[in-house]
Amino acid sequence: MDKKIKVGILGAGRIGKLHAENVAYRIPMMEIKTIADPYMNEGMEAWARGIGVDNVTKDPQEVFGDPEIDAVLICSSTDTHAEFIMKAAEAGKHIFCEKPVDHDVDQINRALKAVEVAGVKLQIGFVRRFDHNHKKVRDMVQGGKIGAPHTIKITSRDPEPPPIEYVKVSGGLFFDMMIHDFDMARYLSGSEVVEVYAKAAVLIDPAIGEAGDVDTAVVTLQFANGAIGIIDNSRSSTYGYDQRVEVHGSKGCVQDFNDLPSTTILTTKEGVLGDPPKWFFLERYNEAFAEELIAFADAINGDKEPVVNGADGLKPVLIAEAANISLREGRPVRLDEL
Amino acid sequence: MDKKIKVGILGAGRIGKLHAENVAYRIPMMEIKTIADPYMNEGMEAWARGIGVDNVTKDPQEVFGDPEIDAVLICSSTDTHAEFIMKAAEAGKHIFCEKPVDHDVDQINRALKAVEVAGVKLQIGFVRRFDHNHKKVRDMVQGGKIGAPHTIKITSRDPEPPPIEYVKVSGGLFFDMMIHDFDMARYLSGSEVVEVYAKAAVLIDPAIGEAGDVDTAVVTLQFANGAIGIIDNSRSSTYGYDQRVEVHGSKGCVQDFNDLPSTTILTTKEGVLGDPPKWFFLERYNEAFAEELIAFADAINGDKEPVVNGADGLKPVLIAEAANISLREGRPVRLDEL
Amino acid sequence: MDKKIKVGILGAGRIGKLHAENVAYRIPMMEIKTIADPYMNEGMEAWARGIGVDNVTKDPQEVFGDPEIDAVLICSSTDTHAEFIMKAAEAGKHIFCEKPVDHDVDQINRALKAVEVAGVKLQIGFVRRFDHNHKKVRDMVQGGKIGAPHTIKITSRDPEPPPIEYVKVSGGLFFDMMIHDFDMARYLSGSEVVEVYAKAAVLIDPAIGEAGDVDTAVVTLQFANGAIGIIDNSRSSTYGYDQRVEVHGSKGCVQDFNDLPSTTILTTKEGVLGDPPKWFFLERYNEAFAEELIAFADAINGDKEPVVNGADGLKPVLIAEAANISLREGRPVRLDEL
Amino acid sequence: MDKKIKVGILGAGRIGKLHAENVAYRIPMMEIKTIADPYMNEGMEAWARGIGVDNVTKDPQEVFGDPEIDAVLICSSTDTHAEFIMKAAEAGKHIFCEKPVDHDVDQINRALKAVEVAGVKLQIGFVRRFDHNHKKVRDMVQGGKIGAPHTIKITSRDPEPPPIEYVKVSGGLFFDMMIHDFDMARYLSGSEVVEVYAKAAVLIDPAIGEAGDVDTAVVTLQFANGAIGIIDNSRSSTYGYDQRVEVHGSKGCVQDFNDLPSTTILTTKEGVLGDPPKWFFLERYNEAFAEELIAFADAINGDKEPVVNGADGLKPVLIAEAANISLREGRPVRLDEL
Repeated sequence: MDKKIKVGILGAGRIGKLHAENVAYRIPMMEIKTIADPYMNEGMEAWARGIGVDNVTKDPQEVFGDPEIDAVLICSSTDTHAEFIMKAAEAGKHIFCEKPVDHDVDQINRALKAVEVAGVKLQIGFVRRFDHNHKKVRDMVQGGKIGAPHTIKITSRDPEPPPIEYVKVSGGLFFDMMIHDFDMARYLSGSEVVEVYAKAAVLIDPAIGEAGDVDTAVVTLQFANGAIGIIDNSRSSTYGYDQRVEVHGSKGCVQDFNDLPSTTILTTKEGVLGDPPKWFFLERYNEAFAEELIAFADAINGDKEPVVNGADGLKPVLIAEAANISLREGRPVRLDEL
Repeated sequence: MDKKIKVGILGAGRIGKLHAENVAYRIPMMEIKTIADPYMNEGMEAWARGIGVDNVTKDPQEVFGDPEIDAVLICSSTDTHAEFIMKAAEAGKHIFCEKPVDHDVDQINRALKAVEVAGVKLQIGFVRRFDHNHKKVRDMVQGGKIGAPHTIKITSRDPEPPPIEYVKVSGGLFFDMMIHDFDMARYLSGSEVVEVYAKAAVLIDPAIGEAGDVDTAVVTLQFANGAIGIIDNSRSSTYGYDQRVEVHGSKGCVQDFNDLPSTTILTTKEGVLGDPPKWFFLERYNEAFAEELIAFADAINGDKEPVVNGADGLKPVLIAEAANISLREGRPVRLDEL
Repeated sequence: MDKKIKVGILGAGRIGKLHAENVAYRIPMMEIKTIADPYMNEGMEAWARGIGVDNVTKDPQEVFGDPEIDAVLICSSTDTHAEFIMKAAEAGKHIFCEKPVDHDVDQINRALKAVEVAGVKLQIGFVRRFDHNHKKVRDMVQGGKIGAPHTIKITSRDPEPPPIEYVKVSGGLFFDMMIHDFDMARYLSGSEVVEVYAKAAVLIDPAIGEAGDVDTAVVTLQFANGAIGIIDNSRSSTYGYDQRVEVHGSKGCVQDFNDLPSTTILTTKEGVLGDPPKWFFLERYNEAFAEELIAFADAINGDKEPVVNGADGLKPVLIAEAANISLREGRPVRLDEL
Repeated sequence: MDKKIKVGILGAGRIGKLHAENVAYRIPMMEIKTIADPYMNEGMEAWARGIGVDNVTKDPQEVFGDPEIDAVLICSSTDTHAEFIMKAAEAGKHIFCEKPVDHDVDQINRALKAVEVAGVKLQIGFVRRFDHNHKKVRDMVQGGKIGAPHTIKITSRDPEPPPIEYVKVSGGLFFDMMIHDFDMARYLSGSEVVEVYAKAAVLIDPAIGEAGDVDTAVVTLQFANGAIGIIDNSRSSTYGYDQRVEVHGSKGCVQDFNDLPSTTILTTKEGVLGDPPKWFFLERYNEAFAEELIAFADAINGDKEPVVNGADGLKPVLIAEAANISLREGRPVRLDEL
């Protein structure tokens, strides 16, 4: 085994804790040196000790300034991402950053520039690329199993809406939720999006509309290679995390289905009853969250370009922006208009 | 059993033969009196005798003028539909007419007016409404199983393109193929389409493009009840007839899958191999074609409004027209613009 | 088309009516001349007229003695089968006979002898061989897709028990119900059964036990080719007709699943709910009942050995007898002991 | 969290390593103090260090004699199990022991006696009870979802045979492989086996027969509660680990299916191709291996009877012995004969 990569974790909210526990229990080639969170408190400290991390702080500088730390995992709020990327890059640390990098394209470009100058690795947390099902779809498309891609369909529906407080600061459905699907569209098609048409509505909770957002959306994508894409999103499936993709091509179709908690079915007069899909992203992408950090470690240890790099962080933001304009103006929007 | 309904069949091409054989072998409450086809020849006559029909003619007037005939099945080319509906109505005969009624809205309205004046039944051949799978989806939506509908998704992909000669006179993908899906969208949503956005491409055969048509299309629909719809069509799935629908609502999701020739699967090191979907509409909608005529007979015998009436024949034509404009002008088109 | 085969139907109970309606509506190469049933009455006559048959009688002799009749369908009670086969054979008529031929081996042998002497076709009504799913399993086994067969598993569970009056005269579960599975075992394995071990119980209704029968059974089979078989039967699945087979071999496994009324599924918080299997044999083997008569007509028209011949009628009876002895004596029984 | 349980691991072969890695990475409430293996060598030491264990030895006494060690995981060869259980019990350590406890019933009883006297916990490694699918089947049976159980069916087929050297010392298919299914039969039925009938053959590799064993087997079980069970085993499915169970009862049926590496399917003209089942027990029962140790830790921390206790270790051995006699003598064998 290569030398263990020492990481500092920035942000110990839900996603930060998830990554920390993965590093602690499932990723032997990494170890946590420090966890920094502005809201660090006793509970968080106890949790950190429980996973074997004694070094906790409110000050991110203790991470950036620590020469022992090889890499940072940026799991803090979106508005800090670009700044932390720049600081980490300047400190010569490899960077894993949660999505989205930022909502502002110029800010993203500044961050990517800093990474380029520093020559460090930057991987963006588009975790779905590491899902066993989606990855196999992509591999089959790449392997020519369906010929040239014609239609890419992505279904992505959350089990239940986030709190309204979250909705208000989320950047909106396209930036917060569909951003993953924009990445998936690029990943599956092997092509770039050139035009976006967005249709959306408030059907689940009027409060979401009052907060200036939508909760149900359908987006049509035109790809550079001629293929057409469709994404449908909902903030509330009610039954669990509905995550399916489908690629139709000149020689056939490849698709995947939801993972289920069990394969067990009960057959009675009422019908055949099976499990609903796994509840949410923590359950569905549980393995994928570990896989993405393993890939990050591999990129560092093998001095390779991360499989989801800075450009992959930028592109979905542009698509989300085009979707917002499309929705506002009721017309298809070309990315080269931006 | 009620008295057998005596029918005259107009047009003995593929679909006319299909209906004739269903009447002959599977629909005890109907019997064929006459089959009229302008291309009537020895082969067609032999086929007619084989199913027990001796009375064949080139002249549709032998059908309209025969007082013994209670109802007509219009299976001739689209350009004759409206005229034949009017003639049949004037002759006081009930009418089953294949889709689409016509490509011209005024012509359709004239035909519907004639039907209204005559007080005869008119049923349009939107056969998919009688499919066991789609019907169960609709029943569940109607029965409130998924609450209010939010997103309606329709996948409809033919196994292989029709001959170019057919493409040239087909009226285009939206009128010829997606017309069924426009009907399905109304059927599943229980609501009317108010706006259409069409995206399409020529990805399968350049000759289709040269003929002025597209072969791959994605259409977004806005329904009056707030729901959003998406339809994806392809002229060539390569693997069979891909016919699936999915309705997501405030309480869950109902969807169906393709029918397969068998449930048999082979498991080897290479994987689990099952049958591809049934090849085309004759296989998939085999039962539904009988069911729609049984429903037509029931409407006649029970003096009830047909389940797919004249208005149901008109609406999808309007949606198809809006889709054509949308595609041409690259913008969403409201039906009230038409 | 060959000349229509004129058939006489003996017995117009549930299965006789089924075959009669199939001949009337779905099998163009056959037509019914006469229907004979000892309980012929007004209701039965009305039903016969409804399917276009005017010639009805209580006397089977009107069938055997009619020189216009080419073939008989024996759908009467089991105790008349052998006698009717002999009479039909003597009259030079081809014979389709429902299963089982008889419970008495000597009687069966006499009937088969008469058929051989007369040189007529005899097909036994093991309808499941014509099921689209089971047939594909068999074809795959025969085609070498799984190599040499090692284990054959047959699940066959009725939705609900027959009336106790029927149980009493049924000949018992092995003769009445599992007889189909014994045929299926031979069909799938391509080998003969040499030993039988039966385990059974009364778990559903004590009245079945009081009638001297069992309602739940598991039978192990040893085949001549070395393979091992298992059959499980129940008189009451409660949820529908459970009919699945599975063949494991040196290169893989082929299996089938139940046919469902629809592919539609409802997904809610409670789970994914689909249709239970088709209710019973009339629904599941609906197509197969037509297919077996088409095969019978083909055997007659093409002067070919029927695909389920007299020997195929005898063998399952021997296996059923061995199963009865095994159950009584609590030990495996070899067929060469009989 | 409770204080971490310090464990000593006895045996660092495939299964010992698996448990050790689980403790190291996935089970926070346990930590490894010592790993003992008679073949301890440099490679094994390096592996141990890699998972953070420095304390390795050839001498099991270093485990039994270490007062810091709370519990042992016995992962050594079967012939040492009973002795190690007794030694651990005498040393007051809780015991997790891999299956089977022993092939000799007296020896097992002595071990269980020692455990009882010492008042320590003993859990047997019937890992399948912790599988998400089987567990849900069991929960549904226990929860009355299918009423009274009538038929229990267990399919258990390995992907490929073990090396002949292993076959020779394995104790035979019933002790080595079907022992898991005997446990599963008790687990699912909630009842005890009272009679066994075994049918088996050498169909995969004659060398297995020469080694005195069989490679394909079907066993019928009679349960005390009246239900009937069937188990089918094969040493070579060729396509992966086939692990399915099915329980039919008075109100319906519950069953499970294999876990697949992905839900992804490819549809082409050749059909629908999906993944074969996960390859073997390491893949299929990956989570279950962690779950069983978590349950063991819970039993220790909560001072509860382990969910798979000593009696559960003994019973399947008795059933295996009955199966061996049945196979040898060609007759059903009652457990009270033993």
